[in-house]
Amino acid sequence: MSDDRLDAVLAYIDGELPESLSRLFALLGIESISTDPAHAGDVAAAADWLAADLSSIGFEASARETDGHPMVVAHDRSAAGCPHVLFYGHYDVQPVDPLSLWSRAPFAPAVIEEDGRKVIFGRGASDDKGQLMTFVEACRAWKTVTGSLPIRVSMMLEGEEESGSKSLEPFMKANRDELAADLAFICDTDMWDRETPAITTMLRGLVGEEIVVTAASRDLHSGMYGGAARNPIHVLVDILDGLRDETGRVTLPGFYDGVGELPAEIAEQWKALGFDEKAFLGAVGLSVPAGEVDRAVLEKIWARPTAEVNGITGGYTGDGFKTVIPAKASAKISFRLVDRQDPDAIRDAFRTYVRSKIPADCSVEFIPHGGSPGLRLSTDIPALKATRGALEAEWGRPCVFQGSGGSIPVAGSFREILGTDVLMVGFAQDDDRIHSPNEKYDLASFHGGIRSWARILGALAEKG
Amino acid sequence: MSDDRLDAVLAYIDGELPESLSRLFALLGIESISTDPAHAGDVAAAADWLAADLSSIGFEASARETDGHPMVVAHDRSAAGCPHVLFYGHYDVQPVDPLSLWSRAPFAPAVIEEDGRKVIFGRGASDDKGQLMTFVEACRAWKTVTGSLPIRVSMMLEGEEESGSKSLEPFMKANRDELAADLAFICDTDMWDRETPAITTMLRGLVGEEIVVTAASRDLHSGMYGGAARNPIHVLVDILDGLRDETGRVTLPGFYDGVGELPAEIAEQWKALGFDEKAFLGAVGLSVPAGEVDRAVLEKIWARPTAEVNGITGGYTGDGFKTVIPAKASAKISFRLVDRQDPDAIRDAFRTYVRSKIPADCSVEFIPHGGSPGLRLSTDIPALKATRGALEAEWGRPCVFQGSGGSIPVAGSFREILGTDVLMVGFAQDDDRIHSPNEKYDLASFHGGIRSWARILGALAEKG
Repeated sequence: MSDDRLDAVLAYIDGELPESLSRLFALLGIESISTDPAHAGDVAAAADWLAADLSSIGFEASARETDGHPMVVAHDRSAAGCPHVLFYGHYDVQPVDPLSLWSRAPFAPAVIEEDGRKVIFGRGASDDKGQLMTFVEACRAWKTVTGSLPIRVSMMLEGEEESGSKSLEPFMKANRDELAADLAFICDTDMWDRETPAITTMLRGLVGEEIVVTAASRDLHSGMYGGAARNPIHVLVDILDGLRDETGRVTLPGFYDGVGELPAEIAEQWKALGFDEKAFLGAVGLSVPAGEVDRAVLEKIWARPTAEVNGITGGYTGDGFKTVIPAKASAKISFRLVDRQDPDAIRDAFRTYVRSKIPADCSVEFIPHGGSPGLRLSTDIPALKATRGALEAEWGRPCVFQGSGGSIPVAGSFREILGTDVLMVGFAQDDDRIHSPNEKYDLASFHGGIRSWARILGALAEKG
Repeated sequence: MSDDRLDAVLAYIDGELPESLSRLFALLGIESISTDPAHAGDVAAAADWLAADLSSIGFEASARETDGHPMVVAHDRSAAGCPHVLFYGHYDVQPVDPLSLWSRAPFAPAVIEEDGRKVIFGRGASDDKGQLMTFVEACRAWKTVTGSLPIRVSMMLEGEEESGSKSLEPFMKANRDELAADLAFICDTDMWDRETPAITTMLRGLVGEEIVVTAASRDLHSGMYGGAARNPIHVLVDILDGLRDETGRVTLPGFYDGVGELPAEIAEQWKALGFDEKAFLGAVGLSVPAGEVDRAVLEKIWARPTAEVNGITGGYTGDGFKTVIPAKASAKISFRLVDRQDPDAIRDAFRTYVRSKIPADCSVEFIPHGGSPGLRLSTDIPALKATRGALEAEWGRPCVFQGSGGSIPVAGSFREILGTDVLMVGFAQDDDRIHSPNEKYDLASFHGGIRSWARILGALAEKG
């Protein structure tokens, strides 16, 4: 690999940026909300768009049927060289409600100025359409400038990441041979800060569970029945309030089984990062850390498990007042898992706990919403050094090994089903407002991300 | 007062029943739905009908303007004698949707057979046109047979009871002198059962309050922030769960101030009623009484205060799952009050308690939704004995002093604004389906109700 070829690729990327952006805008304009059945056609349209775009740069690409939304699979065999990398991203997005909190239309992307920086505004700009397009654009640059990729590349782009990834594992199992690779890249992670690249080596897992508590056979008038009839909202708040003790620890028996303390090396690196807890919380209007009282904020969000209520509803929630004792009340609860916590054991412990709190004449329904273990990557993967070097060359700063509080269930699946090592590299910022109104992606993330992947592809060819 | 005169009045009532019914049908045929602006003309027509009917029997009657629907006020001064009673009822009705659930047209009243009994079918038959016409017909009978009423009678008939009674208190305050009386009767209550008359001597009051807890300045991703950022749903469930202790008692300091134990006489009477707790709860699919552990169901719903969550919402409540830590969570809470509990003091105690549970960087907004004290009528009101005796004479059974879990705010207004004692006497049954499709009023309630009022008017003249 000559430096000249890489320089030419990087120069092409710089000049092509406006066209790269308009392709991203085309994808961002598609309302691929995977949780909402009304948008199934849009999700399929996004898959078709990606397959067509990848075909146009020489990938053998198609949107493949699953029981849910399509999986886009693409292969480029222009390079015989090793290693063979499998790239993962997702093209579905989160819902946009409440729409009234968006300052612009969520599916009419634009580059706007924010705090003196150019940002790409729109649902999915950061999570994950913008991130996955950094890789696609890097491939396009290599192919356009040199006629081929420096290494063999496959892609698997999912359409159900924001709705539980139900088809993902069955698809990987059914297509194990086709998807086999030496290394997998997952792109929906972030940088340490705007200047400092990072490889994410620690991920939290997730157990999602919805409970519906039913008491009376119909809604009751609280004048006629209040004081004698069971109120399912009361049952529910008792259950939810009992999930954590006064020190912020989760009370489920066995919940902390498999949760190790941080390795000393990582603990020291994190301490050295000089993470500003006040600034982190202050950016979202908070100042008092919640959760476990004896842990640092960075440890809490990267390396500690949680029990969080993500949604609750029951009774009359419209304007005004209605003196009703509702028949039902429900909540959506998620547990973030770390290290060797077992998702199945935690779901079981939760259900046992909930059942123990349900009065004899009430009932509870459990609706599972996915489960995946946490992940702690080994830092001695051979490709790690090349990737880290490429990132440091692009950003001019040491690359951080970081944790991530979010869950990327596919990371575990790559290791378990395909047997590949996984590197998580992304360029998001923690103020991207993913899953919230006014999502954005820094233009510098998009541009620097494309350049970073171009360098990584080149560096892996040299190492391979 | 000679028994002969009363006997003649009662005989007249029996013979006049067909005509009494056709007058009631005329009133029931008017679609006086007060919540629906499209029916404002019908509401006014019902007021005019009543004013005309009362004028026809010698009342000085008129439909008086308010900021909302008219108030019908009528005075009869044919008797100089004491006491002067003020009768209250309402001529507006609930909406009728869903119309498809009605077995006949709601505003085409008819006497039909139901479970072997004759019932008056139609919207408003029980709530409250049928009830108020029992009193009007009793007055008509006295005036027709004897030329005058045995006591002085005024009436105040409201047209906004089903839509918030906004004009009621201003009207009472503005016409305090004109409405002054020795005693007020309120007629929208029920009998203990079909054979047993009742005077409602206990009503619960109501304090409604909505709280909105705000934590972060925007919705957060629970992966990125979970474990360190405050979740307002957690704050809310902690607040709500802490409102009641494990014995079902409300924990607010001072909450039970002014709550007396049941007078022994009432407690014994209620015990003797043989109330079937299992049947009461079983009818709505419940079997385990909720609330205070050491109280009977009848006492809980009639004579004990409550803290009830009537609505709760926060985070993602749609289909599927969203791993969000919301910025806000809210709940609507109502307190049913009894005896001498002070609504203002209870609202204050609740707000103080809530504020004590709000973390330093969170905020709470309070939205009040009305407040009215409970009512416990003294059983030594002079007129009570006469009324009770009249009811027992008519029905041939001891008259029950009962409670009502619901609130009738006008009862408190009579005492506070007009300074009158209040007796609540009505002839509805608990299967009348008020506020629901297929509302009815037993023909026996209508007939026996007219006869009962005729006796009460006579008895009060004797006592007066």
